[in-house]
Amino acid sequence: MPIALLTDFGLMDSYVGVMRGVILGRAPGAVLFDLTHGVPPQDVRAGALQLLSAAPYCPADTIFLAVVDPGVGGERRPICLRAGTRLFVGPDNGLLWPAAAHFGEVAAWDLRETPCGLPQRSATFHGRDLFAPVAAALALGTSPDRLGVRIPDPAPLHIPVPTAIGDEVVGEALLVDGYGNVITNIKPEHLPAPTARFHAGDAVLTGPASHYAAVPPGEPLVVLGSLGYYEIAVNGGSAAATLGLEAGQPVRVSR
Amino acid sequence: MPIALLTDFGLMDSYVGVMRGVILGRAPGAVLFDLTHGVPPQDVRAGALQLLSAAPYCPADTIFLAVVDPGVGGERRPICLRAGTRLFVGPDNGLLWPAAAHFGEVAAWDLRETPCGLPQRSATFHGRDLFAPVAAALALGTSPDRLGVRIPDPAPLHIPVPTAIGDEVVGEALLVDGYGNVITNIKPEHLPAPTARFHAGDAVLTGPASHYAAVPPGEPLVVLGSLGYYEIAVNGGSAAATLGLEAGQPVRVSR
Amino acid sequence: MPIALLTDFGLMDSYVGVMRGVILGRAPGAVLFDLTHGVPPQDVRAGALQLLSAAPYCPADTIFLAVVDPGVGGERRPICLRAGTRLFVGPDNGLLWPAAAHFGEVAAWDLRETPCGLPQRSATFHGRDLFAPVAAALALGTSPDRLGVRIPDPAPLHIPVPTAIGDEVVGEALLVDGYGNVITNIKPEHLPAPTARFHAGDAVLTGPASHYAAVPPGEPLVVLGSLGYYEIAVNGGSAAATLGLEAGQPVRVSR
Repeated sequence: MPIALLTDFGLMDSYVGVMRGVILGRAPGAVLFDLTHGVPPQDVRAGALQLLSAAPYCPADTIFLAVVDPGVGGERRPICLRAGTRLFVGPDNGLLWPAAAHFGEVAAWDLRETPCGLPQRSATFHGRDLFAPVAAALALGTSPDRLGVRIPDPAPLHIPVPTAIGDEVVGEALLVDGYGNVITNIKPEHLPAPTARFHAGDAVLTGPASHYAAVPPGEPLVVLGSLGYYEIAVNGGSAAATLGLEAGQPVRVSR
Repeated sequence: MPIALLTDFGLMDSYVGVMRGVILGRAPGAVLFDLTHGVPPQDVRAGALQLLSAAPYCPADTIFLAVVDPGVGGERRPICLRAGTRLFVGPDNGLLWPAAAHFGEVAAWDLRETPCGLPQRSATFHGRDLFAPVAAALALGTSPDRLGVRIPDPAPLHIPVPTAIGDEVVGEALLVDGYGNVITNIKPEHLPAPTARFHAGDAVLTGPASHYAAVPPGEPLVVLGSLGYYEIAVNGGSAAATLGLEAGQPVRVSR
Repeated sequence: MPIALLTDFGLMDSYVGVMRGVILGRAPGAVLFDLTHGVPPQDVRAGALQLLSAAPYCPADTIFLAVVDPGVGGERRPICLRAGTRLFVGPDNGLLWPAAAHFGEVAAWDLRETPCGLPQRSATFHGRDLFAPVAAALALGTSPDRLGVRIPDPAPLHIPVPTAIGDEVVGEALLVDGYGNVITNIKPEHLPAPTARFHAGDAVLTGPASHYAAVPPGEPLVVLGSLGYYEIAVNGGSAAATLGLEAGQPVRVSR
């Protein structure tokens, strides 16, 4: 069973490396792969979106080990979720919820009293001390029932959906990617017309266009992105920088 | 067969992770390894240089999956190249060419009608929807003939070579690496004398030196770099920052 | 035997990728994993600390391949260290020493005349030309005695320890991590009282706190970090930025 890692740890420190070491020490044959470790620090919603967008493309038996965990060491529970053939391990702050719920009914386990953590559990790094050992145990075939206690109420997290206000649809910028593409929460079914006007900051863009290079270099456009959402882009450039956009800003669509 | 990945996707988003997931879902035993995902965004020539410099050090049966693809979704073809025992998958914009041509005669296939892409192909992410599935199929031993149509004319890309002008050799800065070393396109056979003067921006450096620490800390030098080209460096510092140099600038060599 | 990689190469270039390629070409079944490639450029002590903090969490048969090597091509020796079941490969500048010494008695080999390097050894990239081939040979089970010559005197490197001055303990900031947490060299046994005052720059913090979220968002605190040292943090923010702290600064502890 492959283990997919997603965190906000970045790659400048050895935090991710230490988690890999813990897993390989307990499950030497495990296949590890990174989704990303570039989630903005402590941004649970951004992490949840990244996990949701990546999980459907991963092997059906993947164990997802995800850590964006500003409440580490406090009251939030460590949990395991199961949905169909997928397993998810991480903090109970909503991070895992959208991706798990995407695959159907979700079962949940509280890992606070798990028998498989490291002997000493720090107050700051459950990724190393608890989540990595649990993921390794799952990769070895251990049932979640032996690793935690069933709970009925994992914390949900809902990605905002656009609302129709009069003739307009009002959505928002969910994410800015590394190219500066601004990914909205607006999907084809939300458009008031096949071609519409997108309003973001001071920009008004008519679209969607078929692909990035459908406009001249340096020009902005709207395109249906790979996550199934419309995104605001600049051909060969950064829409976020060019248009002054950031995550959380409203994006309106009119005829 | 190992699969080597090179893109300009960066590691802040899950784009690379999604490609890994697609490959492992179809070729569960594939050995994936990253060359780099830090190619400057949409800089096809820089990506081609990185691939050319890395490929000769990779296993002889490597499948190179490379994506720097500003024309994604438009007219440029997705292709597979084969040279000797190596296979290359990516956009037909020259990215793959120098590395493939390094290994001898190049055969090429057009992948536009490949039967193995994902069911829905986005206009913005062929890395996920087309190139990763093709690389997985190749890793499973599928012949390129079953994945695409032979074509005679993949797009070439030529790394510029220095020219002799009078007593001088005029080259250029090809790349700036993460240390700030400025890698030129000048090789030992281009030097007008065993020791020569390198002119770059306002700097004049006599060299080459034997290694970085051959000059005092903070001092600039010219050294024969690991790619076989001369590079301008600063012992313990960044030549690009110290001397104000960047890729594309001319570098002259005189006696 | 897994091979753990740690360097200051960053991930913007293909230097790390090339090392992976060299290893997989010689030891195709090797399990590679990254500790980090984000060590500050040429900062041997920071690399040694990262390696020391990660190694105890890695499999007991790990080969550690670590390169932070400002003296590459010069007089410093390339070495292999063995401590118990662990092997270490890299430059003889202290980088490997604290991690190896952590596991007990250290045996050392000089690799200058190793028979297994690449045919051409550059003056700037021993990671590719010498250390990676040696690590691959070790992964295949080759004895260090066949790869180098025993030496009695590998270069040590000592992590500074706090000193007691009157009623105070004077330590220092060892590292700043990617969150901006400031990791000191002060451990629980150094505290003059269970609750103490930490002085760093202009800040005076009473602690330790139990976990990050024990103070309101944006507030600074001291917490026992995952490396076993006290660290100065800001709940949901960057202590380095908020308090103007950096590695090397003194940190005092008083009653």
